[in-house]
Amino acid sequence: MIGIDDEEFIRGEVPMTKQEIRILTLVKARIDCDSIVVDVGAGTGSISIEAAKIATCGKIFAVERKAEAVELIRRNVEKFSVDNVEIICAEAPEGMDDLPKLDAAIIGGSGKNLRKILDVLGERLKLGGRVVINAITIQTTADALNYFRENHWSYDACQVQVNRLRRVGSYDMANALNPVYIISAEKIINSCDDWPKENV
Amino acid sequence: MIGIDDEEFIRGEVPMTKQEIRILTLVKARIDCDSIVVDVGAGTGSISIEAAKIATCGKIFAVERKAEAVELIRRNVEKFSVDNVEIICAEAPEGMDDLPKLDAAIIGGSGKNLRKILDVLGERLKLGGRVVINAITIQTTADALNYFRENHWSYDACQVQVNRLRRVGSYDMANALNPVYIISAEKIINSCDDWPKENV
Amino acid sequence: MIGIDDEEFIRGEVPMTKQEIRILTLVKARIDCDSIVVDVGAGTGSISIEAAKIATCGKIFAVERKAEAVELIRRNVEKFSVDNVEIICAEAPEGMDDLPKLDAAIIGGSGKNLRKILDVLGERLKLGGRVVINAITIQTTADALNYFRENHWSYDACQVQVNRLRRVGSYDMANALNPVYIISAEKIINSCDDWPKENV
Amino acid sequence: MIGIDDEEFIRGEVPMTKQEIRILTLVKARIDCDSIVVDVGAGTGSISIEAAKIATCGKIFAVERKAEAVELIRRNVEKFSVDNVEIICAEAPEGMDDLPKLDAAIIGGSGKNLRKILDVLGERLKLGGRVVINAITIQTTADALNYFRENHWSYDACQVQVNRLRRVGSYDMANALNPVYIISAEKIINSCDDWPKENV
Repeated sequence: MIGIDDEEFIRGEVPMTKQEIRILTLVKARIDCDSIVVDVGAGTGSISIEAAKIATCGKIFAVERKAEAVELIRRNVEKFSVDNVEIICAEAPEGMDDLPKLDAAIIGGSGKNLRKILDVLGERLKLGGRVVINAITIQTTADALNYFRENHWSYDACQVQVNRLRRVGSYDMANALNPVYIISAEKIINSCDDWPKENV
Repeated sequence: MIGIDDEEFIRGEVPMTKQEIRILTLVKARIDCDSIVVDVGAGTGSISIEAAKIATCGKIFAVERKAEAVELIRRNVEKFSVDNVEIICAEAPEGMDDLPKLDAAIIGGSGKNLRKILDVLGERLKLGGRVVINAITIQTTADALNYFRENHWSYDACQVQVNRLRRVGSYDMANALNPVYIISAEKIINSCDDWPKENV
Repeated sequence: MIGIDDEEFIRGEVPMTKQEIRILTLVKARIDCDSIVVDVGAGTGSISIEAAKIATCGKIFAVERKAEAVELIRRNVEKFSVDNVEIICAEAPEGMDDLPKLDAAIIGGSGKNLRKILDVLGERLKLGGRVVINAITIQTTADALNYFRENHWSYDACQVQVNRLRRVGSYDMANALNPVYIISAEKIINSCDDWPKENV
Repeated sequence: MIGIDDEEFIRGEVPMTKQEIRILTLVKARIDCDSIVVDVGAGTGSISIEAAKIATCGKIFAVERKAEAVELIRRNVEKFSVDNVEIICAEAPEGMDDLPKLDAAIIGGSGKNLRKILDVLGERLKLGGRVVINAITIQTTADALNYFRENHWSYDACQVQVNRLRRVGSYDMANALNPVYIISAEKIINSCDDWPKENV
């Protein structure tokens, strides 16, 4: 059962995907009990840990470049007692060459390497495998959408804005969280060579 | 695995909770494989069916007053081959008296009876049981929040707005869905009598 | 010309209506060059000052109960050199009895006295005069809408959410501002006694 | 006084900027009574007409390529009795060569020519002149932001989402309007050659 409260994760100063976005991201990635998943830009590890609790017979690879964040992932893995998360301390797409064939990839942070990471995922994902990207900038959103359109992936996307209500006396006041674009794509062909010429 | 696409449900003219809201609602209701759940104002039955697929050893009671919607629920139950949904054609809180003890209640539509329905749920929910309300009007949202505060339920709430991106040539354009307030509450005491006097 | 940047106001710790909401509020109040306006819960005075710059031949009464905020209004009035703002240090509806007939009222803060304030405004507004309320809680929004419906005012309302984009290197990242309900109402009858009996 | 209701414009099938966005756009363009303004992709002419009512001693050039929309602008110009709007039936940047020096430009529709239009505006705007773009796609938003950053314009931007409340019996229900990015930029140098080398 997904849906861990934000407060339960050890967070430090590292930004964390908020609960509602985490839930939607995990569901849209269609993670199953035996899924092999990579979590790129794993941050605090909150996505990896929820994924690990669904894919109990699968495996999660958490790729993260920042030492501070890697340490947080370690501590959260320990706190939530999950044994199927493997941390890869690298700047993606580095560190992704030896990954097994993947069922799903979640990209929470991509630095400036989004297209390179998607190229590698195109190789490493199984046919029918899914990528879900959480983007908080206009440019990353545009890059992701353009990449999927140009490379003939099937995709859909939405922007999600959550306003949490906070109780103040006998009133409830909205506190805005920053909106996130969730872009979900499915690998529908094995390479561009397979794409029927008339549709290109 | 939750997350059925909206298009897969038979819909007719009956309004349907959109996928993203459905996902968040089901997760916040913390439905488990053996949960007993009531879906009040079940509409097309989309929530009942997704709940039924999680609570495979549990049971979902779908309460709906409109004949047209009841027929849709029947057809969706058949389409998705779930055998643990029982449809109750009544205007809630009518039809809820004989429900067994409940783990969760989801309220998608309450007509003008919200407070009466919550009173009945206060009786029928197990301690620790959860109610999740989807509200699309200001007044229902205010009523729900005020009820939970006045009756000492533990609650949290958020407003969720989803803008779906629609591909138009080489552009992606936002299409707004109506925002929904999701109010989640937990029954933390068995009756108001138990509430410590000094906190009232 | 309205549209002063937020940064130009002296703010202290007092919450301030953000520029986009301020613009929409002032426009929906239909303030003219000779308008007599009351700004209830004036806060930093940002609304009063922009109103004063439109209503150059009119007058703005800024009602504010907190001494700290009153001092801020004074300093902003001085900074922007407007001479048609009169500050009333009182908790509305107190201090409003001696106001002249009003063209418009803007309510940015009402404490728990919203209905009493609206009752007084019903007396003090000219026929066709307008009230614009900025509400940040569900309950104030519901109260305002219910009041206007019950008292046969003509009203419309919207929720406005602004996400400011902030440049970070070569990216632009959304920063959410809290959503605000803007409720605009027009006094269309002089008292409830005038309301045709069959419509009540 | 700006703020004409949407219903007052003659609209046909042509999409129209909604009132709240129109207000914010006009204010951010800082149109004054003697401003010379171009409205690119004028659509129904709603922006041009409100601009014309502010810039009573100025002039508005409404550039629109679609014959159907041009006809609507004509009819709206007539309905609102403004005599300072000149319609240019062309696909921008065509038709913009003979424009006088401009105080402001509003871009509601740019087809695929955004960068070319901005290049022309860079020539035609006075120093300190402003461009305000309403963008409804991710790609146009990204293009506009990237253009302004690369060309050293001063800019700020926000996404605005409006949910109109619609009365249904004794309830008020939110109806979402599609979100719009409003990007405002100011021409701060006369050409890239003037830009200090060390900042490039």
